[in-house]
Amino acid sequence: MLIDRFEADYLLETPIAPERAAEIIAGEQSSGTFVTVPGETPELKERSAARVTRLVVLDEPVAQRSLPSAHPPKSGERITRALITLSWPLATIGPSLPNLVATVAGNLFELKDVSGLRLLDIRLPAAFGAAYAGPRFGVEGTRRLADVHGRPLIGTIIKPSVGLDAEATAAMVKDLCEAGIDFIKDDELQSDGPNCPFDERVRAVMRVINDHADRTGKKAMYAFNLTGEIDQMRRRHDLVRDLGGTCIMASLNSVGLAGMIELGRFSELPIHAHRNGWGYLSRHPLLGWSYVAWQKLWRLAGADHMHVNGLQNKFSEDDDSVIASAQACLTPMFDDKPCTVMPVFSSGQSARQVPGTYAGLNSTDLIVTAGGGIMAHPDGPAAGVRALREAWDATIAGIPLEEHARTHPELGRALEMAA
Amino acid sequence: MLIDRFEADYLLETPIAPERAAEIIAGEQSSGTFVTVPGETPELKERSAARVTRLVVLDEPVAQRSLPSAHPPKSGERITRALITLSWPLATIGPSLPNLVATVAGNLFELKDVSGLRLLDIRLPAAFGAAYAGPRFGVEGTRRLADVHGRPLIGTIIKPSVGLDAEATAAMVKDLCEAGIDFIKDDELQSDGPNCPFDERVRAVMRVINDHADRTGKKAMYAFNLTGEIDQMRRRHDLVRDLGGTCIMASLNSVGLAGMIELGRFSELPIHAHRNGWGYLSRHPLLGWSYVAWQKLWRLAGADHMHVNGLQNKFSEDDDSVIASAQACLTPMFDDKPCTVMPVFSSGQSARQVPGTYAGLNSTDLIVTAGGGIMAHPDGPAAGVRALREAWDATIAGIPLEEHARTHPELGRALEMAA
Repeated sequence: MLIDRFEADYLLETPIAPERAAEIIAGEQSSGTFVTVPGETPELKERSAARVTRLVVLDEPVAQRSLPSAHPPKSGERITRALITLSWPLATIGPSLPNLVATVAGNLFELKDVSGLRLLDIRLPAAFGAAYAGPRFGVEGTRRLADVHGRPLIGTIIKPSVGLDAEATAAMVKDLCEAGIDFIKDDELQSDGPNCPFDERVRAVMRVINDHADRTGKKAMYAFNLTGEIDQMRRRHDLVRDLGGTCIMASLNSVGLAGMIELGRFSELPIHAHRNGWGYLSRHPLLGWSYVAWQKLWRLAGADHMHVNGLQNKFSEDDDSVIASAQACLTPMFDDKPCTVMPVFSSGQSARQVPGTYAGLNSTDLIVTAGGGIMAHPDGPAAGVRALREAWDATIAGIPLEEHARTHPELGRALEMAA
Repeated sequence: MLIDRFEADYLLETPIAPERAAEIIAGEQSSGTFVTVPGETPELKERSAARVTRLVVLDEPVAQRSLPSAHPPKSGERITRALITLSWPLATIGPSLPNLVATVAGNLFELKDVSGLRLLDIRLPAAFGAAYAGPRFGVEGTRRLADVHGRPLIGTIIKPSVGLDAEATAAMVKDLCEAGIDFIKDDELQSDGPNCPFDERVRAVMRVINDHADRTGKKAMYAFNLTGEIDQMRRRHDLVRDLGGTCIMASLNSVGLAGMIELGRFSELPIHAHRNGWGYLSRHPLLGWSYVAWQKLWRLAGADHMHVNGLQNKFSEDDDSVIASAQACLTPMFDDKPCTVMPVFSSGQSARQVPGTYAGLNSTDLIVTAGGGIMAHPDGPAAGVRALREAWDATIAGIPLEEHARTHPELGRALEMAA
């Protein structure tokens, strides 16, 4: 357990000696500059300098630099990859998430001696756990509000992404409630445009959800996308809460860290955190952020649900990466403050991916949002919801989907559709 | 001039037909989904769909995909690059910067049919200019507060980045004020750590700056790094203002968009916007953001100074990119609301880069921050400041540096040092 230091792991690629490159990064991100200046004493360096605490050179040969540079490659240069860990004194920044980001992910990706750098993980001392609330609802609070236990929350996304007005959205929500859905979310493109104003949408949708709950006892959790400015988010949150809503949604890369911390402080509802834009942070394997590192920021800030893509998704990410992301969401951050959150599986999800998802995660603590997988079931959304639940029932019981499908026709039709 | 739509330009690389890939992106980022669902009518599509309004296939042959994917390349696939423009109806999001980001830079970089995607530029209708304040000070307000006219603001960065306490920082500021400096900034790693608390630093530094101003009439502009949470930033801003400070600084990637919009709304001082972390958004040429697109967000949000790196910098960015970024900062965004801001040149800057900077920008509306270039001048910081001013005087007058150096020994020594 770290006490007075914080650490970051990186995958480094460099055309110079990796030990030297690691020292340059450590210097750039703490007390270093490129010319010795007055005031730089050995004591000061010792108190404030980042240290390279691990360097493991990887064996794989690297034919050429992964990332270009204005400084052209030298002929015969040897390019090396290494796993490195840097350690900083907490006293330089204190337990501050925004300043943590400037330190572990600041001016280092573009250093000329770096031809690749990816932040793989961060480890924070307990002071961070004390300074931030973390998820207020997390897995338990979400289950309690949705009243779903022992299996995943089965959810969907309102589609088309944009274009429906408030009443058309509510009509779709009515069908979904009748279909027995647990969870519904706005698309990340839908927040408060003139075509479907936030307030109108919340009023129309909550009328439907509350009516259905009054009649049946089942209240679908709807994640209203309140992404916007601070005051807008506060006002929108209050409206959702006042109308009996049980979830809000925000786009992390649109709101940013200070905004999400603020939202985490005032929200009285679970925060469904959408990662759209994640591709520009992560798609190159030698650049940017791993999700294992990135998701920790938002969990501490107060996110309760974190998107992790899904198996066999429509994007470029492979299944191992998806499972690693989801496992990270369920891995405790601090001994006395786990900050675990619900991973959200989405993108082309259907009954087909259920066995692999369960095998990879070894847990039912997740939300799955299937768009076409539910809405386009040949027998309608109710059959789509039933098929997904049947797939999870079978998988948890250890029954192969095809076998279960013989006695569960909705599942059978869903498997045909997804084949 | 756009009225009811907004546009984004991208560099696209794809292993499928570029027309098809562009349509997939447009669909994913508006009304599309992967399976036709109930509710999707032609009228709805027309009202809400994004359109591909330009597609120019680039001639260059591409040997292999720039970005990897879980979906392996097909043998004989043809990889194409193209410049595309997408256009969205404003009615889907309204004039909202956070929702603009989710739309133009959301779930598209990781699409499996995309092997490279870079956001090159965005164009916004006047409604955005009406909805956001933009820079409150910009070039004119900064010049007024710093009382520097007809030439760049000559600045420096407190180094070492971290490790100095408040009194040591103030002692350095005293030397710099006596050296005649126009502008000083905190390092982006220095905000409010226990080693150098924000309040202590502001009090100690402003005592020195105010004393010097009382005696000489020259008040150095100091950008105090208040990067943090919303309430912290508000409190820190008020302290700087109350003690007579004339600038605050924030790290854009640490604070994020909603936080910067909030800061822009309440700040009564110029906002010095630091781009640390920019490398992870931009370093790969077929991924992420161009600065030309990215800087527009922050200018609208209220930034007054934007970092653009510097010529012959210590990073991997080439000079053309630096100049394009700086020119973008001085290019008006709207006819009636230019939102122009001071570009900030930094990273290994000295007298040596002055002629190239002036030739590239064709303006003196900039801030240059030289760390070692001033602090490590062999004759001390005062000579370092003088050398930089002499370099600009000479360059504006059309005199080669070497010639000017013959009668200006500080400049001569600076050129020797930088050689």
